[in-house]
Amino acid sequence: MIRERFSEHIRNYLSDDSWMILEDHYDPEENLKYESLFCLSNGYLGTRGAYEERAAKSIPCTYINGVFDKSETFMRELANLPDWLGIKLYVEKELIGIETCRVLEFSRALDMKHALLVKRFVLEDKKGRRTEVEGIRMVSRANVHRMGIRLFVTPLNYSGIIEVENIIDGSVINFCDAPRFKVKHTRLLTNCPLTDKGAYVEVATRDRKLCVGTGSLIEAYAGGRPVMKNRSFGAFGETAVEFQDFDAEEGKAVEVVKYASVYTEREVPDCHGDSCTERASDRSELHCRVRDEIKGFAADGFETEMSRHIEVYARMWDEANIEIRGDFDLDRAVRFTLFHLMSAGSEHDDRVNVGAKLLSGEEYGGHAFWDTELFMLPFFACVFPDTARNLENYRYRLLDAARANAAKNGYRGAQYPWESADDGTEQCPDWTIEPDGTCYRCYVAVYEHHVTAAVAYGIYNYVKITGDRCFLREKGAEILIETARFWASRCEYNREMDRYEIRRVTGPDEWHESVDNNLYTNYLARWNLGYVLELLREFKEDGTGLYEDLKARLNIRDEELESWSHVKEKMYLPKGKENGLLEQFEGYFDLKEVTIEAYDENDWPIRPEILRTVPKTQTQIIKQADVVMLLHLLGEEFDEETKRKNYTYYEKRTLHGSSLSPSIYSVMGLHVGDETKAYRYLRRAAFIDLTDLQKNTREGIHAANAGGVWQTVVFGFAGVSFSEDGVVDIRPHMPKEWEGLSFKLHHRGSKMEITVLPDNSVTVTVLEGGPVSVRINGEAMVLKGSGPADEAMVPEGSGQAAGGPS
Amino acid sequence: MIRERFSEHIRNYLSDDSWMILEDHYDPEENLKYESLFCLSNGYLGTRGAYEERAAKSIPCTYINGVFDKSETFMRELANLPDWLGIKLYVEKELIGIETCRVLEFSRALDMKHALLVKRFVLEDKKGRRTEVEGIRMVSRANVHRMGIRLFVTPLNYSGIIEVENIIDGSVINFCDAPRFKVKHTRLLTNCPLTDKGAYVEVATRDRKLCVGTGSLIEAYAGGRPVMKNRSFGAFGETAVEFQDFDAEEGKAVEVVKYASVYTEREVPDCHGDSCTERASDRSELHCRVRDEIKGFAADGFETEMSRHIEVYARMWDEANIEIRGDFDLDRAVRFTLFHLMSAGSEHDDRVNVGAKLLSGEEYGGHAFWDTELFMLPFFACVFPDTARNLENYRYRLLDAARANAAKNGYRGAQYPWESADDGTEQCPDWTIEPDGTCYRCYVAVYEHHVTAAVAYGIYNYVKITGDRCFLREKGAEILIETARFWASRCEYNREMDRYEIRRVTGPDEWHESVDNNLYTNYLARWNLGYVLELLREFKEDGTGLYEDLKARLNIRDEELESWSHVKEKMYLPKGKENGLLEQFEGYFDLKEVTIEAYDENDWPIRPEILRTVPKTQTQIIKQADVVMLLHLLGEEFDEETKRKNYTYYEKRTLHGSSLSPSIYSVMGLHVGDETKAYRYLRRAAFIDLTDLQKNTREGIHAANAGGVWQTVVFGFAGVSFSEDGVVDIRPHMPKEWEGLSFKLHHRGSKMEITVLPDNSVTVTVLEGGPVSVRINGEAMVLKGSGPADEAMVPEGSGQAAGGPS
Repeated sequence: MIRERFSEHIRNYLSDDSWMILEDHYDPEENLKYESLFCLSNGYLGTRGAYEERAAKSIPCTYINGVFDKSETFMRELANLPDWLGIKLYVEKELIGIETCRVLEFSRALDMKHALLVKRFVLEDKKGRRTEVEGIRMVSRANVHRMGIRLFVTPLNYSGIIEVENIIDGSVINFCDAPRFKVKHTRLLTNCPLTDKGAYVEVATRDRKLCVGTGSLIEAYAGGRPVMKNRSFGAFGETAVEFQDFDAEEGKAVEVVKYASVYTEREVPDCHGDSCTERASDRSELHCRVRDEIKGFAADGFETEMSRHIEVYARMWDEANIEIRGDFDLDRAVRFTLFHLMSAGSEHDDRVNVGAKLLSGEEYGGHAFWDTELFMLPFFACVFPDTARNLENYRYRLLDAARANAAKNGYRGAQYPWESADDGTEQCPDWTIEPDGTCYRCYVAVYEHHVTAAVAYGIYNYVKITGDRCFLREKGAEILIETARFWASRCEYNREMDRYEIRRVTGPDEWHESVDNNLYTNYLARWNLGYVLELLREFKEDGTGLYEDLKARLNIRDEELESWSHVKEKMYLPKGKENGLLEQFEGYFDLKEVTIEAYDENDWPIRPEILRTVPKTQTQIIKQADVVMLLHLLGEEFDEETKRKNYTYYEKRTLHGSSLSPSIYSVMGLHVGDETKAYRYLRRAAFIDLTDLQKNTREGIHAANAGGVWQTVVFGFAGVSFSEDGVVDIRPHMPKEWEGLSFKLHHRGSKMEITVLPDNSVTVTVLEGGPVSVRINGEAMVLKGSGPADEAMVPEGSGQAAGGPS
Repeated sequence: MIRERFSEHIRNYLSDDSWMILEDHYDPEENLKYESLFCLSNGYLGTRGAYEERAAKSIPCTYINGVFDKSETFMRELANLPDWLGIKLYVEKELIGIETCRVLEFSRALDMKHALLVKRFVLEDKKGRRTEVEGIRMVSRANVHRMGIRLFVTPLNYSGIIEVENIIDGSVINFCDAPRFKVKHTRLLTNCPLTDKGAYVEVATRDRKLCVGTGSLIEAYAGGRPVMKNRSFGAFGETAVEFQDFDAEEGKAVEVVKYASVYTEREVPDCHGDSCTERASDRSELHCRVRDEIKGFAADGFETEMSRHIEVYARMWDEANIEIRGDFDLDRAVRFTLFHLMSAGSEHDDRVNVGAKLLSGEEYGGHAFWDTELFMLPFFACVFPDTARNLENYRYRLLDAARANAAKNGYRGAQYPWESADDGTEQCPDWTIEPDGTCYRCYVAVYEHHVTAAVAYGIYNYVKITGDRCFLREKGAEILIETARFWASRCEYNREMDRYEIRRVTGPDEWHESVDNNLYTNYLARWNLGYVLELLREFKEDGTGLYEDLKARLNIRDEELESWSHVKEKMYLPKGKENGLLEQFEGYFDLKEVTIEAYDENDWPIRPEILRTVPKTQTQIIKQADVVMLLHLLGEEFDEETKRKNYTYYEKRTLHGSSLSPSIYSVMGLHVGDETKAYRYLRRAAFIDLTDLQKNTREGIHAANAGGVWQTVVFGFAGVSFSEDGVVDIRPHMPKEWEGLSFKLHHRGSKMEITVLPDNSVTVTVLEGGPVSVRINGEAMVLKGSGPADEAMVPEGSGQAAGGPS
């Protein structure tokens, strides 16, 4: 048991191994990976798993979701905010540190169940003094403004004074280890004691001057009594350091607790009176808020806050946990991806989205992509519907920005940005800098328009899963209308062929940039138009006045609706002439036919040799699911034979150059009966960060991949799908490695638990709400709802809803 | 030859081994020591020998002499100013650094002749890329505002882009590696590009707001043509970083030159108009001055400035070099101490003194002690009389502060502070902090009054050596009168014994703190009174009106002069009753008689066991020369037998707990005929820093020790002394290890070269001025002066002045 590696100070707080991710030895080359793996987030902020005493190789980051800044960079990115982690312990000026001492014993572990990062080191300094340092770190989800570290420091072979620095480091920057890209996103406003003790650093983002206040207080206890003494505060430029010391006795643990808090001007508006640009002469409102929070935290105590935090995670896991029996490593790896995904989502704030690296790394600047709607949203909609609604509201909040974006680009309606930060403007840079310093023009935002379809599809899917028609009517419909408008204006009529086309566009497969009539995009655009027309018909008929209201408010004339209908009907959808194959884009079939012929030991496609000489763009080799993504999203529009044929065709041409690809192939493969690759794809996706398969985990956790893992398990192996009329279809494809699978789902106000056995038999228990219509392995049934949530639901006659093997 | 370790880029600039201090391998534990050893100073500023790319163990410091700040510390100390050294080279984001790469070849060396720090590394990064980095660093003495680094960067097994950061780091603090004592002495004012390129950081000291501007520009040249490209500036809080890159080709060296400059508000008064407290909105005058200096430097080129710099050092060494033939290591070690001492002295600025650690480390805060007058001044007076005059003027400038200090303490006249910084107030803290954080009262400044006698004696000695009676009449006399006044008021009349006493005082031996009638202090006080009375008599007789002027200006009444005479005559000078021994202080002979009985392999006294149980204060064991220092300074007052007896007595009781002690014992030992220890004492003193004998070289070079080394060689082994009537007495005591000794001396406007052979025969050549009266081994002669400086001087009849063996 991993928890046995820790002493009684910590051990009892820890979970069993299926919840624990262990780092069992110190290797500085692994620091950046573990900083991502051990990132703690609470929906409001995320802090990478850096060491309290700092290591040479480190990208210590604390992000608050929504706090972006541009300054000298090409785009607004999450600003690295003052690092609150710093605790340095010294014996006679010698740092008791992971890199300054000999490491005699080492364990760090992430307890996913309790969302705690724990450590235990025995360190020996150059004079042979040995110190045991154990610690628990928490970024509370019970109160997102409370972050804490609790250490147990035990001199093993000496007694003496241990000096302590409580540090808030405002000198952190973004891309600190990339000389060409280093950027400072904040400016120091204040560096002072928190009260008569403690430390407080206030910074403002450089461009929009949003203030962020970070404070901390450190205490030490021996036998329950405070022992910290000789406190003195030092302002070192952007870094606040409170010095203090305590007497430590050989063999006796001293408990050191750091209470920290951070607030921004978003929570404390007008924090400096009229303006936030000047150095505060007195304490700002922000300072007072941080001070009061820390006072409250210290009064409650670390233990109390930790209990509340664990309680919140217990509730979250009760929703989110997936249990895969008989496949321990994969079970844990899947849990790991869910841990990070659910930790980053916010059920409280609809001004923020979920970035492509969550809050765990600096790549992609914390921007939201189509990843949100197509990869992560199904998870949130089925597991944390409140968070999903926030993600939808986020798009609605930024609808005006999307309108402006469309207008700027010469279109009508609303065009969502390929990369979205806080204000909805396009954050995908027009230029990128190569490692050699040359800039090149980046056309992604110019051509990759399918994100606007993804936003529309996300609304559809969110509503289909949650049944939140209120959102649809009040906000979603407006977005859908504006995106339909965009597509109608984006399409060009080809008189010769009597068809509508979308020219110069890039589909999900980014290796063929700027093509004409990308099938995926055309289909989604057509779908958007069709869905809106159907919706409006529905609203017109329901007599609530919504139809008239929308028409009036959005200035929709009947001719416009007719034109949408026309575009929809005449949309060009390229297709092979005889073979029933869908053509990824117009002319794709004319490209050099290159297929994948070899797979490595992990069943991962080996890049065909020919690509060394022939550019990818000239071949049929593609980066990621494109047509297959279409089959996944709009499955109802294709027959099974078409799905099978196209899956097989494209699977041989996909190199999975994006982490978004394998999960979709898994789901679709299982759907069409190819069980050969899905399990390996899932393993790859589940371990992508844990084993750093793409060598970029240092940049942060792959968020869309995490959503893809969930989809592969639930939509793929469990074979769950939702029909528009509210039936939950379950048709599992259990891999031979598994002894059982269970998870919970929210669906249209109900909550059910689904358990699948190796023979693909299914048990569904309705835990809340109901009745629920299910179709298990083809057999339809209705499960009654219950009164109390914890009572098992039964279908007609039987104990629970269950279906035999298909 | 050490220079063979360097390539042709550098080799030809380097001197032979007798001028070279080599670091032949990289050991991070030695970094701090080498930072002190390899410090480069030019009288204006000093920069420790830190690596351009920074190492983990480092105390990077740049001090400008005179730029002090107090802030939270107990005393005004030299503020660590923005570090101008920073150059980081990267290949694909991988730092080409001493600690991030494998070190395949390593040499660093200080060329003392040319005052250059050079290095040559071959570094291999994790990807196997090997880079040769050679470098020359210079802190120009031709123009003290120019500092430069010239690197030759050669990729050995790859070609690629090398990224470069030109860094000015304003985040440096004092005591960065001592958590309890860390202090920030500056506040950032400006962080911006120097012009359209380069970097500029302006800071102000925190308490008196003195502005300091540091700028730099970096260029790269291949085949003589500039190759730096892609420049971009980043302000990261207190650190300015200019990024740029160049293309490097395998096997071809690219030359990288960093031109840096620093000015302070002292050179550019009113640099921000009326006030320097606000952030400059436009470029400050200081910024413009730094910019222009760097422009000029870059236009002249590194090579040109280096030539001028070497030229200055050639002239300085022509004055200062001591050549000891046949004892290579010691010869070089002596040169090393002189290098640092002469590099720190300023011939241009009389507002600054020479700190106890020169400009090479942070201990003692850059303060001047009695060390200046008694240990260093003889060197400067004999070798660099202009610098010596500045040291004297420094005391005169601070005479009013010394008057205020006396008044504050209830005395009359002028009392010089035990520790002196920029304003002459006492900078010896009243309190010190123990490692355990407790404060204890420090009585050094309260009791250790002999510094005021040292200042008086310094004037006497300076005038005796240089013959600068102009200083004596215009400034020195005033100081001497005020210090005499202090002593007269400090003495108490003991009616019972009919004597004057100085009670509650600490002599040079600080292990007996607060004693009554410290012999050294009483003698020096008496001497001060006597010397002033004699001087005034002289002035009175010379009819220039100076006597009357001084009397009027300093309000001296005849009764006061009488009282001084009275104090002088009745001063109590404790002495043993029968044995002819001088008593260090009243009651010293009654202390427990403990003597040193054992010496270690270096002839260094071993601490008597008894001191484990009996406090030093209760024994006769002393820290350093006290009575023996008196014998050295006021030798004329004691007969040879007394000197011999007391030397022998106290030598057995002195543990040399201060680096100031051995040299005085050496000089006095040789004087009284004890040649057994002097040579070992000299070795110890000469190697004290080179081999880190006291384990504190990291804190800086021992300045007084360096002066002591010079005195041991010149006053001890060469047996030089100066009589008041201007005769240079030379009575050598050559150790058997030496094959010859030669050096140059200035004396009363003349300059002579003195060469001693193993048989103690002496050759004196008058190089400038003259005639010079010498007494060689007891034989008096007068050497005629010359016209041209380079013509050899001859005494009557013989080719040169020469004396046979004594």
